[in-house]
Amino acid sequence: MKEVANTLRSAKRILMSLHRQPDGDSIGSTLAVAVGLRRLGCQVTVASPDPVPHAYDFLPGVETILSWRDVAVGQFDLVALYDCADERRTGAPRPLREYAPKILNVDHHATNSRFGDVVFVDPVAAASAELANRTLELLGVTVDRDLALLLYVGLETDTGGFRYASTTPESHRLAARFLDAGIDPGEVSELVYERQSVGGLRLLGLALDSLRVRPDLSLAYFVLGDDAFAEAGATAQDAETIGIVDYARRLEGIEVAALLRSDGPGEVKLSLRSKGQVNVAELASRVGGGGHERAAGATIMGDLAKAEEVLLSLLAGR
Amino acid sequence: MKEVANTLRSAKRILMSLHRQPDGDSIGSTLAVAVGLRRLGCQVTVASPDPVPHAYDFLPGVETILSWRDVAVGQFDLVALYDCADERRTGAPRPLREYAPKILNVDHHATNSRFGDVVFVDPVAAASAELANRTLELLGVTVDRDLALLLYVGLETDTGGFRYASTTPESHRLAARFLDAGIDPGEVSELVYERQSVGGLRLLGLALDSLRVRPDLSLAYFVLGDDAFAEAGATAQDAETIGIVDYARRLEGIEVAALLRSDGPGEVKLSLRSKGQVNVAELASRVGGGGHERAAGATIMGDLAKAEEVLLSLLAGR
Repeated sequence: MKEVANTLRSAKRILMSLHRQPDGDSIGSTLAVAVGLRRLGCQVTVASPDPVPHAYDFLPGVETILSWRDVAVGQFDLVALYDCADERRTGAPRPLREYAPKILNVDHHATNSRFGDVVFVDPVAAASAELANRTLELLGVTVDRDLALLLYVGLETDTGGFRYASTTPESHRLAARFLDAGIDPGEVSELVYERQSVGGLRLLGLALDSLRVRPDLSLAYFVLGDDAFAEAGATAQDAETIGIVDYARRLEGIEVAALLRSDGPGEVKLSLRSKGQVNVAELASRVGGGGHERAAGATIMGDLAKAEEVLLSLLAGR
Repeated sequence: MKEVANTLRSAKRILMSLHRQPDGDSIGSTLAVAVGLRRLGCQVTVASPDPVPHAYDFLPGVETILSWRDVAVGQFDLVALYDCADERRTGAPRPLREYAPKILNVDHHATNSRFGDVVFVDPVAAASAELANRTLELLGVTVDRDLALLLYVGLETDTGGFRYASTTPESHRLAARFLDAGIDPGEVSELVYERQSVGGLRLLGLALDSLRVRPDLSLAYFVLGDDAFAEAGATAQDAETIGIVDYARRLEGIEVAALLRSDGPGEVKLSLRSKGQVNVAELASRVGGGGHERAAGATIMGDLAKAEEVLLSLLAGR
């Protein structure tokens, strides 16, 4: 981790990036390091391949995030990435090497591809925000309320409210310090979780109405056609935000949860979740998809009925 | 708090009670103290007015909980209560004074009526589990994995995964110590949150389908008829467990969320939740109900259409 701090310290013009469909940890950990480095006099540009979700639009520094389209190559000493498991996750239009001569890769995903020149991967960390906090400590940046807010949101969201197995005693000790720095957890929850759209909630209702349970396969799944989005007045972003597939995972006796949703004509997006006994990354890979043991996905060519057949045969064949 | 420990230490036969519709904190804090006292050689009986919800049936000591029906008066030195804001919350069939000459009342609810002989109310504590932990410390009982599990579940559930405004740095420091004692947060989440019933999920779907939004009143609400429970194959317990009314509270721009549900012929149960700006206890009291500022309820005589009128006029008149 000292090499991480030294690498950042020796750069003047730094380019950072969120990952595709940025979540609280991508935004929180990246912005915390960016804001901290700016206080030390660095020029830091933060790019993103996708818009920042509404839930995180209140975070300090979020207004400085640029689209990759607006970032020129060759203007930087260093590309510094937090929470990007591989180079493609940045969504950069050109190879990262063209933007700067050096690449720093800091992450907590065990699946990190170890790309870049300086690599620090700590899979024990519950969130990249923990690694961003360590970086700021080594850089001598005081974690004031703004930085604590960024780090807390990263930590809180990536641990699902400190509920996931990845949560460690250290995660809680860090959270205690962020609260000491002035974070009001109720206020943050209201901003992150209580500004949902009516369309998203109606879409969740339609998804729940479509619930299909196959106890013989320990499978529960939802099916959403194109018409569901129109009927609910919801966007694909709403479907992500509200975490539809997780509702099926919470059922007793269910090991695998799935969501099938139309994604344009002749294409169905499959999302898979597991309680831990079934490796859904392996299942997804059989139909050209990928992901993690507990959360994976794939795109299936065909209509919903075809995709449902594929899903059932995947589960029957495991 | 020393007087609490001394009171417990000087009793031999102790009666404890959960509160009506016991939640994770009632069960966790009460059982932690009961299990700890038993280790010190006390005879501890734990009574409950209602069955322990399925979500908590794995907790150590839960098998020792009796129905109040099976508890005789005059057999005890002390009634010791954690998390019971008033005497009626225990659901005891007879006045507590008939069960024992002394009553101990330990709680974190600011609304606690201060009944009993020895009273310790700390509204800064995020959960009664924090007070149970302090009690065990003073009694010299080591918090091993079993006790940590009880206390962790009390703390985790009563703070909504450390998300509520009531969460303090101390809550996180305690959680860190419970994890140090061997708690696996992922395992606990799976047991508490991921054993939901299909009926409950279908009921949530029907509730979401009934969503009505009144932006002019900052109100969003659900309406569930008797037929909904039958159609979903769900029980009133399912409706509580899944926290239906909270889904409306999470909408952007909404200050008050409500659920109207048929509760037998000619009776409608109204549940109210607030984000904080509106005192729903005050609203509920206007129709003979009560509760807390952010969570309250009432029973309205009449059919659902009548109850909906009452709800709308309550909000319009505030």
